[in-house]
Amino acid sequence: MKKSLGAKTILYPTPVLVVGSYDAAGRANVMVAAWGGIACSKPPCVSVSLRSATSSHGNIMARKAFTISLPSEAHAAQADYFGIVSGRDQDKFKVSGLTAVRSDVVDAPYVGEFPFVVECSVVAVHELGLHTQFVGEIKDVKVDDALLGDDGRVDLDRLRPILYVPDHQAYHAMGAFVGKAFSLGKTLAGRS
Amino acid sequence: MKKSLGAKTILYPTPVLVVGSYDAAGRANVMVAAWGGIACSKPPCVSVSLRSATSSHGNIMARKAFTISLPSEAHAAQADYFGIVSGRDQDKFKVSGLTAVRSDVVDAPYVGEFPFVVECSVVAVHELGLHTQFVGEIKDVKVDDALLGDDGRVDLDRLRPILYVPDHQAYHAMGAFVGKAFSLGKTLAGRS
Repeated sequence: MKKSLGAKTILYPTPVLVVGSYDAAGRANVMVAAWGGIACSKPPCVSVSLRSATSSHGNIMARKAFTISLPSEAHAAQADYFGIVSGRDQDKFKVSGLTAVRSDVVDAPYVGEFPFVVECSVVAVHELGLHTQFVGEIKDVKVDDALLGDDGRVDLDRLRPILYVPDHQAYHAMGAFVGKAFSLGKTLAGRS
Repeated sequence: MKKSLGAKTILYPTPVLVVGSYDAAGRANVMVAAWGGIACSKPPCVSVSLRSATSSHGNIMARKAFTISLPSEAHAAQADYFGIVSGRDQDKFKVSGLTAVRSDVVDAPYVGEFPFVVECSVVAVHELGLHTQFVGEIKDVKVDDALLGDDGRVDLDRLRPILYVPDHQAYHAMGAFVGKAFSLGKTLAGRS
């Protein structure tokens, strides 16, 4: 029997997107967002939604660029800090001791110590209500080379990405392998 | 040292969104999508991106409604099957043995056996390229009442949601609790 929870913003999982941008004076800022995801395969796009009250919102509107840095488990407290304070009140890079690295492909900074980075140029801005959705075309993806496996792909055991659980306001690790996509369902597909 | 992987659609994690819709004749269809996420808090919105070649795309364009059913680990093969075949070729509910339940709030069906459902009415359609992004206002969220904990929230150990890893084409479980959001970073926030 299903129970109604009402019109709530719950989905499992949501990502932990650390969004980097520059303000008008060229100061680097970061915030954390869970409302977003990949939005298109060709051109490769990601979308992330920010409230207009954030300083990152103004930065991205002006610079038309942002980065997404993904924290490892070891960086969970720093990522959480990015969501607690405003860039208007604190220099978040300075306080966290992390390094703002200028992207070589878009006009935005990323977190040097975080292992995985997506660099985006804004191609669409959608006003949805409290949140503005920025669609960024992915110009490059960068990863710490120590995290690459022998097959050239990211080794998840070394990356140790985290995810966000909205209704629990909690960060979780990524769990065990369940199965191969486009493979697990093949038996079913064959018995039409 | 960071290594460039090029302009790829990789993010960790992405969700496993089983999208339900009706065609013109009222036949229920489902497909699976990983390109999407929560898009706005007020009104509560979720976005999901589909290729125009899919029959779900045409259904949602016409009916202006869709549902998202989240599979548990136990349903991974069925969810994967939904992404392998087209609704034009197979009646996916019939083949999978799952039940299409008519939503009581939007003009779309959901998967009765899946534990968690988000019911959406389309409020915006964005053509991004290969994918069309549908933004749906969340009208209700429904969950199997057996999965609710004593605190009225979803018990994640019972829900056992899965996630998708794009560059590995793999499904994974949700892992262990890492920390509380808006809490872990408080120590940092205090030392400005």
